[in-house]
Amino acid sequence: MKTVRNILEMSEISLKEIISGRKTGFVPTMGALHEGHLSLVKAARSENDTVTVSIFVNPIQFGPAEDFGVYPRPIARDTSLLEAAGVDYLFLPSAEDMYGNNFETYIDLERLPGHLCGLRREGHFRGVATVVAKLFNIIKPNKAYFGQKDYQQALIIRKMAADLNFTTEIKTVPIIREQNGLALSSRNRYLTEKQKTEASSIYKALRNGEKLILEGERNAGVIIQDISGFISNNITNSKIDYVSAADPDTLVDIDIVNDGVLLAAAVYIGTTRLIDNILVKINKD
Amino acid sequence: MKTVRNILEMSEISLKEIISGRKTGFVPTMGALHEGHLSLVKAARSENDTVTVSIFVNPIQFGPAEDFGVYPRPIARDTSLLEAAGVDYLFLPSAEDMYGNNFETYIDLERLPGHLCGLRREGHFRGVATVVAKLFNIIKPNKAYFGQKDYQQALIIRKMAADLNFTTEIKTVPIIREQNGLALSSRNRYLTEKQKTEASSIYKALRNGEKLILEGERNAGVIIQDISGFISNNITNSKIDYVSAADPDTLVDIDIVNDGVLLAAAVYIGTTRLIDNILVKINKD
Repeated sequence: MKTVRNILEMSEISLKEIISGRKTGFVPTMGALHEGHLSLVKAARSENDTVTVSIFVNPIQFGPAEDFGVYPRPIARDTSLLEAAGVDYLFLPSAEDMYGNNFETYIDLERLPGHLCGLRREGHFRGVATVVAKLFNIIKPNKAYFGQKDYQQALIIRKMAADLNFTTEIKTVPIIREQNGLALSSRNRYLTEKQKTEASSIYKALRNGEKLILEGERNAGVIIQDISGFISNNITNSKIDYVSAADPDTLVDIDIVNDGVLLAAAVYIGTTRLIDNILVKINKD
Repeated sequence: MKTVRNILEMSEISLKEIISGRKTGFVPTMGALHEGHLSLVKAARSENDTVTVSIFVNPIQFGPAEDFGVYPRPIARDTSLLEAAGVDYLFLPSAEDMYGNNFETYIDLERLPGHLCGLRREGHFRGVATVVAKLFNIIKPNKAYFGQKDYQQALIIRKMAADLNFTTEIKTVPIIREQNGLALSSRNRYLTEKQKTEASSIYKALRNGEKLILEGERNAGVIIQDISGFISNNITNSKIDYVSAADPDTLVDIDIVNDGVLLAAAVYIGTTRLIDNILVKINKD
């Protein structure tokens, strides 16, 4: 595995890969890698000739009150994990190179960020879309891999890529969970063991909501109340940021469940904000 | 010359050019071609293996009160001109293909559009930056060519390309003028012969401003007043949209001329809005 820090060098390597006819799979990350990230790398490895992973804790996707400063950066461990996973290039740009020189260009989506996490994290998805567009232009991947845990993020990137005619194919990969159901996240390392155990109730609550739907409940308010209640009752010192039943394509809140529905939750456990979601499909005869 | 209307087909052609090691020069236009456009094509022809020109009257860069509906579309004549100029590919996408499917992704610059034309044409440069990013992603050119007449546009595209890590090199090409000094523009065809003659006073006024500076005048207000007065006195039925003395890099208005300065004007003649500019350099001993 070759580590590349210089943007121009990465760009030239990517161009050579294209000219040589090799297909590149790309996994953008903020590091602090876990099995969720590695499942993206594995998918990229199996579907492409070359695999490039970036690690970049992107300052412009963090709000002023968020955890940019303390976000974990275990770069030596991450490097070993990626080497073992058969990655070809690790791209490690600096924030100065990415946003120096009076940076002023941003990518804005008009609708998809106006829901779920986007409502609570002002500017977050602008920062995400912008950095991913930059990385796509540097790496020029054939395919890029995103985790389903960040459902809204994956949807926004897919929409951005389509709208701006990026030729990169966007792939989403299922959530990897602890045995107790807790969705893997780099932010789980902020939790105590007790909190990690309790945090699994977010997933359990979502599954309860799914069960209600499959049993015939159609009132989204009832389903959301059930999920919220379960979370509040089972996680000490938790604060619900949101629980939503939303259209899986537009993310618009649903009142009456008719079709497929995204059940999504964001919950503070202490000061740690965790998100999770499940996609519920209704079998219609 | 091959005419391509389908986005995917254009995209595949562009990729083949890259893989074959051929360098592509790209000239994005809205058609109604004149010698100004052809000077861009000529520059592209001399510096690249392949030349692609797009003609697309981009709806999202026109305001609701602007001339999108009546903007000239002499496609047969344009095609002949490009064929004669040795263009390889003419890309002619439809607005439906470019902005169908619930389009919602835009590229915004924070500062450069907040001056000159950007102040008067709400959303114009957002539309320009967005369509150029789309075209860059489809064509993937090595170099792209823009006219100096749209000085602010060229500066914005250059900044967008740098900020978003497009690997396309942005080239700007000098203004082509009528013998009387009038800058060529597709909108000149809205003018009567008499108006065309009078419109040359925009350029004459800017040159007067330059003369004042070179003679030692440093007060931008005095220079602007002189330019504005000359235009108002010499063009019947004219209305000045703006006359500005601005920093050539940031476009911020200048009070005292110390260094190079952009003298720029936008003038309505009847209902036709024309722009022009000159870059004044001060020789310092």
